[in-house]
Amino acid sequence: MEHMTPADQAPKTAAPVTDLFDITIIGGGPVGLFAAFYAGLRHLKTKIIDSLEELGGQLTALYPEKYVFDVAGFPKILARDLANNLISQAMQYHPTISLGEIVHHLDPVTQVPGHTEAITSTCYKVTTDKQTHYTRTLLLCAGAGAFSPKKLTLPEAEGLEHRGLYYACRSKADFAGKNLLIVGGGDSAVDWALNLADTAGHITLIHRRNQFRAHEDSLRQLQRTKARILTFFELESLIAANGDLTGAVIKNNQTQEIQTLNIDAVLVQIGFHSSLGPIKEWPLQIEKGSIRVNQHMETALPGIFAAGDVATFDGKLKLIATGFGEAATAVNYAKHILDPHAKIFPGHSSEMTPQHDSIVTL
Amino acid sequence: MEHMTPADQAPKTAAPVTDLFDITIIGGGPVGLFAAFYAGLRHLKTKIIDSLEELGGQLTALYPEKYVFDVAGFPKILARDLANNLISQAMQYHPTISLGEIVHHLDPVTQVPGHTEAITSTCYKVTTDKQTHYTRTLLLCAGAGAFSPKKLTLPEAEGLEHRGLYYACRSKADFAGKNLLIVGGGDSAVDWALNLADTAGHITLIHRRNQFRAHEDSLRQLQRTKARILTFFELESLIAANGDLTGAVIKNNQTQEIQTLNIDAVLVQIGFHSSLGPIKEWPLQIEKGSIRVNQHMETALPGIFAAGDVATFDGKLKLIATGFGEAATAVNYAKHILDPHAKIFPGHSSEMTPQHDSIVTL
Repeated sequence: MEHMTPADQAPKTAAPVTDLFDITIIGGGPVGLFAAFYAGLRHLKTKIIDSLEELGGQLTALYPEKYVFDVAGFPKILARDLANNLISQAMQYHPTISLGEIVHHLDPVTQVPGHTEAITSTCYKVTTDKQTHYTRTLLLCAGAGAFSPKKLTLPEAEGLEHRGLYYACRSKADFAGKNLLIVGGGDSAVDWALNLADTAGHITLIHRRNQFRAHEDSLRQLQRTKARILTFFELESLIAANGDLTGAVIKNNQTQEIQTLNIDAVLVQIGFHSSLGPIKEWPLQIEKGSIRVNQHMETALPGIFAAGDVATFDGKLKLIATGFGEAATAVNYAKHILDPHAKIFPGHSSEMTPQHDSIVTL
Repeated sequence: MEHMTPADQAPKTAAPVTDLFDITIIGGGPVGLFAAFYAGLRHLKTKIIDSLEELGGQLTALYPEKYVFDVAGFPKILARDLANNLISQAMQYHPTISLGEIVHHLDPVTQVPGHTEAITSTCYKVTTDKQTHYTRTLLLCAGAGAFSPKKLTLPEAEGLEHRGLYYACRSKADFAGKNLLIVGGGDSAVDWALNLADTAGHITLIHRRNQFRAHEDSLRQLQRTKARILTFFELESLIAANGDLTGAVIKNNQTQEIQTLNIDAVLVQIGFHSSLGPIKEWPLQIEKGSIRVNQHMETALPGIFAAGDVATFDGKLKLIATGFGEAATAVNYAKHILDPHAKIFPGHSSEMTPQHDSIVTL
């Protein structure tokens, strides 16, 4: 089993902030990744923005070790492998990737700073919690919304974030040689315990139940490492000195036994919240938490499209297979807006070489 | 390279002719195969009917050795491999397969011969050129229509069909030890020349041009066999004795050179015609050769659905990715007609075991 995460293989291209993109895709899950592939196929200058630190959406964040059965052409495939395949497929065209950014505002603009070419149609400014993006069209593939890690409710937790307390592993170096406590029993907790086994000094993993949601094969692998695995234990409090984490108190919820651990880092992996967040305030037609689109997958705002679980229309089913189809439809109609002379129908891929669209003479 | 055809691995289940099926899928191409998978996932008793002798549709019949780039999750895949994957995916649920049958008539019926259970809703009788099928719902995934091999226009050809002249290889035994002439320069011609190399006594392949549409690797393989490959040659006439083929006259279209070959069999592989054929006369809304559907993929007739290239609606794009999504949509709405208590949404596949739909407790 590979423990390389999809994000490891995705190049994060840095583009000048004021670059104007043809299409910006909000959401780097399966539907957003397939949309990015299709946008590349149609020669669109493409950017993906995702709130998570790695591409793959739910496939990677929620159930990487589960099999998916309903993707055409795969009798079964691990969610993690499907994510990696979709990333490779999208990366052929080198889209710009902005990870760990939550989208806040959307504003139509007629000028783009530093952009000297004439802008003939409406463009949009997308403001995230980190920066500003400019795009001619936008495709929302936000699924159930931005994912954010569930956080500890302990009052001392907030002050210790990034001072020993982590909700994501952005760099393994943060944990090098550390006495690390991992909290959680799902795939993320167990996979990170495996992933950091050679980096951290010592690992303790606590889980509040004795049944793990993680793939049993991963758990078995973890049991073969030196990591200490404690079940029925919950985090009771965090201990700090000079503002930095130095220990944790854990409690057995069956026996009420208390243990105090000397640790320098806690990695909390207890799941995710998802929320459409500020997108709900955009002037789109929102119905039961989803965005209404027409049969071109275009929302009430011109040039703003939606596909996958975040989109709704009469007859809509929230399936991965329909999401892929919607992504292809949205991108081809976006292409037509960007270049009204371009055909909506992209041609058959078997007649294209992936980078050039040239027709093979038969 | 494998020269096993997808049909080799597909079990052809023989069901009693009067068996009433929940869903009958017309077309065993990629969209029909994915529909059959989805129908199995939803526990529908499923039949596939196709006019060709093997499953896979255009993927297998027209461009088995070409790469397809626009299927989600496959950066690239050979059409033949995609067809095999889709067949394996569908066969998990053991649909009944009727190959080499062309659909003629559709009639609503309220009784099914030999069927004793009460039939509460409209059923349909589907008559092909070979037999009669009964079904509760129908899903047309007929692509560009039924494929039939392009035939020779020589006046003597019709009388020699199956008396030495063949347009398909239904059984390799037909060619055992024979002096065989293969006509054509595409994948089918070259693949059959390779496939029959050990079966036929001797093989001559003629092609009217000196450029082959076939995959160059296949052609190179063929050049390493004992087969004689003649380019710029066309079939001029067929020679018969007592109604059986005994020879062929071929002519070089550059030099006008004539050769007379002593052969016992000709296998013509010069492409396919496709046509919706009798389906065009059914009381459906046909628009520019496609069948109009609503957002449930249902046609003007209740319980009759269409998906993929044969279906049309506002915004429709004829792509493999959209066809897969439409197939999933059609099957889930067919399920709802068959069992109004069933949810339209099938649940997430990662929560199902493929055969049982049981929810994994998380």
